[in-house]
Amino acid sequence: MDIRTSLTRRGLSGLLLATLAARAHAQAGADPLPSWRDGPRKQALLDFVAAVTTEGGPRFAPPADRIATFDNDGTLWVEHPMYTQLAFILDRMKALAPRNPEWQQDPALRAAAAGDLQALAGAGMAGLLKVAGAAQAGNTPEQFQEIAAAWLASARHPRWNRPYTDLVYQPMLEVLAFLAARGFTTFIVSGGGVEFVRAFSEKSYGIPPNRVVGTTFALKPGEADGRITLTREPHVDFIDDGPGKPVGIARFIGRRPIAAFGNSDGDFQMLQYTTEGAGARFGMIVHHDDAEREYAYDRHTNFGRLDKALDEAPRRGWQVASMKNDWTRVFAW
Amino acid sequence: MDIRTSLTRRGLSGLLLATLAARAHAQAGADPLPSWRDGPRKQALLDFVAAVTTEGGPRFAPPADRIATFDNDGTLWVEHPMYTQLAFILDRMKALAPRNPEWQQDPALRAAAAGDLQALAGAGMAGLLKVAGAAQAGNTPEQFQEIAAAWLASARHPRWNRPYTDLVYQPMLEVLAFLAARGFTTFIVSGGGVEFVRAFSEKSYGIPPNRVVGTTFALKPGEADGRITLTREPHVDFIDDGPGKPVGIARFIGRRPIAAFGNSDGDFQMLQYTTEGAGARFGMIVHHDDAEREYAYDRHTNFGRLDKALDEAPRRGWQVASMKNDWTRVFAW
Repeated sequence: MDIRTSLTRRGLSGLLLATLAARAHAQAGADPLPSWRDGPRKQALLDFVAAVTTEGGPRFAPPADRIATFDNDGTLWVEHPMYTQLAFILDRMKALAPRNPEWQQDPALRAAAAGDLQALAGAGMAGLLKVAGAAQAGNTPEQFQEIAAAWLASARHPRWNRPYTDLVYQPMLEVLAFLAARGFTTFIVSGGGVEFVRAFSEKSYGIPPNRVVGTTFALKPGEADGRITLTREPHVDFIDDGPGKPVGIARFIGRRPIAAFGNSDGDFQMLQYTTEGAGARFGMIVHHDDAEREYAYDRHTNFGRLDKALDEAPRRGWQVASMKNDWTRVFAW
Repeated sequence: MDIRTSLTRRGLSGLLLATLAARAHAQAGADPLPSWRDGPRKQALLDFVAAVTTEGGPRFAPPADRIATFDNDGTLWVEHPMYTQLAFILDRMKALAPRNPEWQQDPALRAAAAGDLQALAGAGMAGLLKVAGAAQAGNTPEQFQEIAAAWLASARHPRWNRPYTDLVYQPMLEVLAFLAARGFTTFIVSGGGVEFVRAFSEKSYGIPPNRVVGTTFALKPGEADGRITLTREPHVDFIDDGPGKPVGIARFIGRRPIAAFGNSDGDFQMLQYTTEGAGARFGMIVHHDDAEREYAYDRHTNFGRLDKALDEAPRRGWQVASMKNDWTRVFAW
């Protein structure tokens, strides 16, 4: 099965429309961010992009420097009531449990297979990483992406009863398209598993696998029947979250971004690393304050906690975008 | 100092010329590879590219699948009489030795500081890695790239008395430009240090940092004066050579290449991984058989040994390009 044809085309269509709209608008001088309400946040982004793309201007940045990084969960798509990848992991655990009776002997694995989030939380980070490995490792990167893509094609979000890939934020698709149209190279820098995000990033965001940075399982090279094999081992060897995000950026992208977009304290160091660089810089936090159209949460949640970054945003010059007030719509549909 | 302005512009000029030439030729139906002699190797490459870019054809590959990977040392530029990065390391060790008198107590560090290659070889891989760390770590990725760029701007190759960045192969620049013009995304997958190669890849090859995969030192995140710091630690945590190349490709690129170019047994697994994929595939080995214009070596050398890959090339369908016979010229100058 081809990953790219197995995924819904809705996300890509939305992105293509957004890209074409951004290109056309950029040329016509019209609004490249139609789902953003006119106001300080939208204006700050427009001003930043104008400044770094004005040749001869004091804040001009050549295209090679126009690196923009985006968190995924909660920044580009919905992360409640739980991270999408966690929903995937729980579905996998349930499906694989009958073939793995030994999981019943382990509290974390047993809890995950039963879908008991409370018991799973009690097993701590070590338990969660064990579950992540059991549900997702032991295959090649290509096999895993097919598994993830097949799940994304069939799973439905409990609130909207739609594929998770429908739950990307239209205003952020417009930002991705707008920046691309202005010579930026866009990257996803996600705490999620790199191969999980790669299973839909190209279709949903127009971002190819090599521009996705994420958490990784160890990859073990070997040979079988005289052919190269790569096996995803059940232990995580890099966590692309918090202080790991600047590390992932330096390692994979190799250049400090001039713009970064996040929504939680897991993005704090990425925003900090980005905006501490010299010259024009832009940091933005998506604030989930819209219980009606999406969700409302910040300091008190298990998924996407926003606390320290919310406190420090003003003094660091980070824009806090209100989903409720700054976005005229949330989803493409 | 800006890395990009501190480097010689010669490499980029050559690449720009090659790119423009390839674009113009592709449109005009003229020769996109003027430094390649007409013959089986050139024809094989032209046939492959024609096959994968012919829409509706049986071997068509959509642009997203057109991933091509290139080894660096000995494939894109000269690697004799020693790897360029080793010359850099030896120069660094010599320069830093007075400030590090304790190096005299260690056989490998002492040998490197004295430029004694034979004694250094006696210290084995462990000794070499220790020297690599002593010469290159303890700085940020940005600082290191400035150090490497400054060295590249001043160092001269002992045979031609030219900057090392002049010693990129014109025929390979044409291949890079030709593939880019035909919708490929090109990557460097080097056994060399990723930040060393990134110090010149954009200028010399038109390949930005995020499309360079290489060997890495551990990166340690921290804070100083309230700002994020990233420190390159003196231990190598990933070796992008031999079996490491498919691992690096899967991790950084996230998609199996359909074309790969190498010159040594260190590229064996990259070539194997690439050409074992389904559909049209292309593998090529640059064979150094031209002592007059460059160097002649294969099975018996410490730098770029080509033995097993040379033996297996015929049965695996890999093209072996003779530098002497297939290239009408080696360098742009």
